[in-house]
Amino acid sequence: MNSFGNIYRLTTFGESHGAAIGGVIDGMPAGLLVDIDEVQHQLDRRRPGQSDIVTARKESDKVKILSGVFEGRTTGTPIGFVIENTDQHSGDYDNMRNIYRPSHADFTYTSKYGLRDHRGGGRSSARETACRIVGGAFAAQALKQSGIEVFAYTSQVGGVKVEAPYNGFEASQVDTNAVRCPDQEKAREMIELIKRVKSAGDTIGGTVTGVIKGCPAGLGDPVFGKLQARLAAAMMGINAAKGFDYGLGFDGAGSLGSEMADFFTTDADGSITTLTNHSGGIQGGISNGQDIYFRVAFKPVATLLRDIDTVDRSGNPAVLHAKGRHDPCVLPRAVPIVEAMAAMVIFDSLLLNRASRL
Amino acid sequence: MNSFGNIYRLTTFGESHGAAIGGVIDGMPAGLLVDIDEVQHQLDRRRPGQSDIVTARKESDKVKILSGVFEGRTTGTPIGFVIENTDQHSGDYDNMRNIYRPSHADFTYTSKYGLRDHRGGGRSSARETACRIVGGAFAAQALKQSGIEVFAYTSQVGGVKVEAPYNGFEASQVDTNAVRCPDQEKAREMIELIKRVKSAGDTIGGTVTGVIKGCPAGLGDPVFGKLQARLAAAMMGINAAKGFDYGLGFDGAGSLGSEMADFFTTDADGSITTLTNHSGGIQGGISNGQDIYFRVAFKPVATLLRDIDTVDRSGNPAVLHAKGRHDPCVLPRAVPIVEAMAAMVIFDSLLLNRASRL
Amino acid sequence: MNSFGNIYRLTTFGESHGAAIGGVIDGMPAGLLVDIDEVQHQLDRRRPGQSDIVTARKESDKVKILSGVFEGRTTGTPIGFVIENTDQHSGDYDNMRNIYRPSHADFTYTSKYGLRDHRGGGRSSARETACRIVGGAFAAQALKQSGIEVFAYTSQVGGVKVEAPYNGFEASQVDTNAVRCPDQEKAREMIELIKRVKSAGDTIGGTVTGVIKGCPAGLGDPVFGKLQARLAAAMMGINAAKGFDYGLGFDGAGSLGSEMADFFTTDADGSITTLTNHSGGIQGGISNGQDIYFRVAFKPVATLLRDIDTVDRSGNPAVLHAKGRHDPCVLPRAVPIVEAMAAMVIFDSLLLNRASRL
Amino acid sequence: MNSFGNIYRLTTFGESHGAAIGGVIDGMPAGLLVDIDEVQHQLDRRRPGQSDIVTARKESDKVKILSGVFEGRTTGTPIGFVIENTDQHSGDYDNMRNIYRPSHADFTYTSKYGLRDHRGGGRSSARETACRIVGGAFAAQALKQSGIEVFAYTSQVGGVKVEAPYNGFEASQVDTNAVRCPDQEKAREMIELIKRVKSAGDTIGGTVTGVIKGCPAGLGDPVFGKLQARLAAAMMGINAAKGFDYGLGFDGAGSLGSEMADFFTTDADGSITTLTNHSGGIQGGISNGQDIYFRVAFKPVATLLRDIDTVDRSGNPAVLHAKGRHDPCVLPRAVPIVEAMAAMVIFDSLLLNRASRL
Repeated sequence: MNSFGNIYRLTTFGESHGAAIGGVIDGMPAGLLVDIDEVQHQLDRRRPGQSDIVTARKESDKVKILSGVFEGRTTGTPIGFVIENTDQHSGDYDNMRNIYRPSHADFTYTSKYGLRDHRGGGRSSARETACRIVGGAFAAQALKQSGIEVFAYTSQVGGVKVEAPYNGFEASQVDTNAVRCPDQEKAREMIELIKRVKSAGDTIGGTVTGVIKGCPAGLGDPVFGKLQARLAAAMMGINAAKGFDYGLGFDGAGSLGSEMADFFTTDADGSITTLTNHSGGIQGGISNGQDIYFRVAFKPVATLLRDIDTVDRSGNPAVLHAKGRHDPCVLPRAVPIVEAMAAMVIFDSLLLNRASRL
Repeated sequence: MNSFGNIYRLTTFGESHGAAIGGVIDGMPAGLLVDIDEVQHQLDRRRPGQSDIVTARKESDKVKILSGVFEGRTTGTPIGFVIENTDQHSGDYDNMRNIYRPSHADFTYTSKYGLRDHRGGGRSSARETACRIVGGAFAAQALKQSGIEVFAYTSQVGGVKVEAPYNGFEASQVDTNAVRCPDQEKAREMIELIKRVKSAGDTIGGTVTGVIKGCPAGLGDPVFGKLQARLAAAMMGINAAKGFDYGLGFDGAGSLGSEMADFFTTDADGSITTLTNHSGGIQGGISNGQDIYFRVAFKPVATLLRDIDTVDRSGNPAVLHAKGRHDPCVLPRAVPIVEAMAAMVIFDSLLLNRASRL
Repeated sequence: MNSFGNIYRLTTFGESHGAAIGGVIDGMPAGLLVDIDEVQHQLDRRRPGQSDIVTARKESDKVKILSGVFEGRTTGTPIGFVIENTDQHSGDYDNMRNIYRPSHADFTYTSKYGLRDHRGGGRSSARETACRIVGGAFAAQALKQSGIEVFAYTSQVGGVKVEAPYNGFEASQVDTNAVRCPDQEKAREMIELIKRVKSAGDTIGGTVTGVIKGCPAGLGDPVFGKLQARLAAAMMGINAAKGFDYGLGFDGAGSLGSEMADFFTTDADGSITTLTNHSGGIQGGISNGQDIYFRVAFKPVATLLRDIDTVDRSGNPAVLHAKGRHDPCVLPRAVPIVEAMAAMVIFDSLLLNRASRL
Repeated sequence: MNSFGNIYRLTTFGESHGAAIGGVIDGMPAGLLVDIDEVQHQLDRRRPGQSDIVTARKESDKVKILSGVFEGRTTGTPIGFVIENTDQHSGDYDNMRNIYRPSHADFTYTSKYGLRDHRGGGRSSARETACRIVGGAFAAQALKQSGIEVFAYTSQVGGVKVEAPYNGFEASQVDTNAVRCPDQEKAREMIELIKRVKSAGDTIGGTVTGVIKGCPAGLGDPVFGKLQARLAAAMMGINAAKGFDYGLGFDGAGSLGSEMADFFTTDADGSITTLTNHSGGIQGGISNGQDIYFRVAFKPVATLLRDIDTVDRSGNPAVLHAKGRHDPCVLPRAVPIVEAMAAMVIFDSLLLNRASRL
């Protein structure tokens, strides 16, 4: 249950305050010229402490590739990697041993396993997503060779919402500000809102929009393996994700068929295309060659900078004294995770599709 | 790619106009006393022709159980079943052989496989979902023994939206009207809207809300196998589904952490519980014993009762002449499918959870 | 647990005396021109009642293909099929309800599931292997297009053993006698032995040799997915199989490295080849382009035509009165099953291998 | 393809001369009190340099557990581990870059992937099996709690064969000599033979016998997941394994049914048991509560201490100059690997079996 993907398959391990986190990428085809610096760059995008609107926690998050790459190329054998946990103030968490933080996994882990590693959330820590970045970064490099680009951006924070459609933005615009929103005006509003929320000791949620360009027609499978089902599972496996939709999604659910259908036509070259892309690039579970776009909703993180009344393991009243190194808004750091998960889904589907015809 | 689930696993086959559809349920534990009439009853709920707001197409959808049940009990061996296709007017579809219907899977299947069964959508037909009903009906009977109940209802059609929260409704209210909405006032509005849309030759979308009651704490896995990820994959694998969220979902994404956290308390018995259930019964990917609730957005079906300009396989202009036996609104018939998929996810997670502790 | 294969994947269902047996073939690529008569022909090779050295039981074993084939070609969607059980003398088995036959699955099924379908062995009946023949026959047709041929033959019955190496025989020789042994002299001895054993109310075991010709280098995976591991799992999943080896196998285990190594050379075209093929066409888990050959050991079936002292469910002494329609030797009918399982393994590995290089 | 198991699932990575090898154990239930020293002890049993009949190569093989164990107990989350490669004389292998060693994986890896890591065999090195020891050692500790014991021993080296049946030996006798054969007389002969073979620059094969005691009835599945199929796949995935059989196996294939059947009786307590155990503890794919025993055949390793004529990548003649640090006989070091793989199969089957009954 700690593996993701069918052919291109990532298995991760590690807790927030153990010796290290890491993983194994299985199914990467041989022959890819890999850029390890670029993998590290993606990790740096997720790392805490990048700006004043995310947690000030310092984690170096240096990835060490242990296998599967030889003389700069993938060999077809599994890519093992570790990221050491360097900022282990485990003692900080002693007071958490028996206390359940609201809307965290403390209670549910204990219910499931009968015990839990309480240090920094243990396995439930979003730190685990660093391993997904590694898996996604390798996939993205392979996709690039096939002309496929995946990017994501913050499209909503609290009530501040990007109204312009995804196709007005480019990948290169995402990192131009701290909130990773390519609409500069909205970005300013979002950053201001996050600062205000932070100073009130509160947190705020929002949405990330993901975009896949250059995806060929034919990816995904008819029934349970629909491309949108794979994307949804990928996104809903990210910490704090509460919703997923693609194309016009929930907004289109109230519409008429005559408004939502993407009518066919031919382009200048005579190739078949559609007049609109309300469907979001997937029909019947299979990509149609148009841009794929989707949204992921993230709840505000539950760690508040206030004293909170809660209970301990025995159900006795307890007070949670906040320590101050949490994200007031996860969105900026969620962007590279959404990209990573999407890249893995698309690359896996591309490899699966090699067996679609005799 | 035509299988769903880990331990409790459904594999389906069949096209709209082949000899039969069917499937295999693997992983059902031995010893369940099964009610085959109840399985058939669930199929009848999905069947076309139930009311004047769904397609008038007639399909008897009689399931034949071929194995895995002996003297009224499951034996632990796979349950094979078939549903014959009795209404095969395959000739009706000759004109579809080379034409691509907008927002259908015609183009994408051909792109993927190089050929397609054009009769009634082939494998992309929603007829395939009848097999999921069978898989879900067996799972639901097993869940019932553990005190777990799964139900769903139509919560939005076009602009008509149920505002009352899910916990004001009960399973027994769902089938009290043709649109399967337990809010009778809204149901009337929805039915009226669907009739209006239908007479205009158009179609309309909406949302279904799913509810799981009695689910014990501990189901789901920490990382990729989060319970919400399994539910999302299940729901997004249903034809015409465009979005999934759970708990406050997209609506909660704009909120503050202080508004969204579910603070702990103890109930009258001293058991740990929460003051609210904004999370939707899952934290850190694992059920917490509260009700699980979620929404699924469905687009309006793309088959309009109008002549539509489209293209054929070669990209030449073509006109699609509508034949009149499609659903103006899929929502009422989607309700039992949502229930079936949810039942399978929960039962599978329950079985997986048996290995969580030594 | 009733599925086999990774990409090309067969799921089966059905008991000896239920309504039908059948299965679903998932992952067959689109575009294969299929010969259903040839599929039926393979089933006929496994069918009881072919000769006087196998059981006289009559089963027509007619396969009905329900989906996945359209206008003579595979569509890429799952191939569902059923084989009806026509010879259901269920009443014949009433006396078996509480009795455990020695070396059968009666006791173990009851131990596992708490109950069992006692009619003709239920799911443990070798009748289930008919479904594998169907899966294998489709795979073999696809392999043929890639120039790969799979065949098997009876290489030992009791003490009668074919001494000549596999490469002196051809697929076309297998069915030239009732025991399916291409060495005609040995075949005569085997048939005579089987008749003698049969008239004594006893049964006899032996070995089947499998051969794969034309398999390209590169199939199989380095570690757990070694090609020999896949073949071994396939063969050891056949009823009554007790052993598997490949290349010189157990016989080579006592040898020196200098005797067993296959030294490299180049052939007339300058292509790299080996002087010998002691390895059996696989090195490091991956095919090397030479012939693959292996053996499967089968025990004598445990059903004797004698009264046998045994126990019932409660451990009370009981006597088993033999009914006379069992195989005195399973080898002749095991041959097409070995071929089917091997064909599925090789085809699955061929499809998996499409993702080995970028 | 680098994962093994269903619920208890080991994924490994690493090459002989990369930075490290390692893996992830997923699916270990929470609550097991683990003895890491014992895990290291098992690794030490596999390590090179233990005696003068195995390779003199020095590898410390120290395992570092990175996650999944907290305060001495498993937490239910994945157990990540690494074993650093300390003896990396990569330069030693420069002459191997373009040369194909006979009966090694050099040619097949290059055929499959288009390139290979030539240093010490890369991923094909038996060094990878150290990771299986770790996976097996954790499984064995869990099995011990259920009263299940797994052990193996060298039962044949060249022509020297243990004739006494498995049930005359105990686990504690295995490590009493360098060849890991509990029959002391045969052990002496084996050791002498290996020394003779070694001094001739040659190598020798043999068989390992595996034994599982205390396994409850009910493990394994009826069809493809037969317990013997899982064991066979596990064993045939070990480097140099050429054959597998269980119970009387190949030797019983020539027998009569009346000789091979295990007739039922009751023991002193009135429990159902069998008079003999020719079947090897499994019937119809499911354990029957008797001892499980099986054999694995290993070929002699192909690395000879002689100059060998071979070819290079381009097919040109080349000479392989042996370097002297290879095992003259893999059997003694294969024993703990056979034990590890068996322990993982049994533990996985035990966890799977928790879902067999409602």
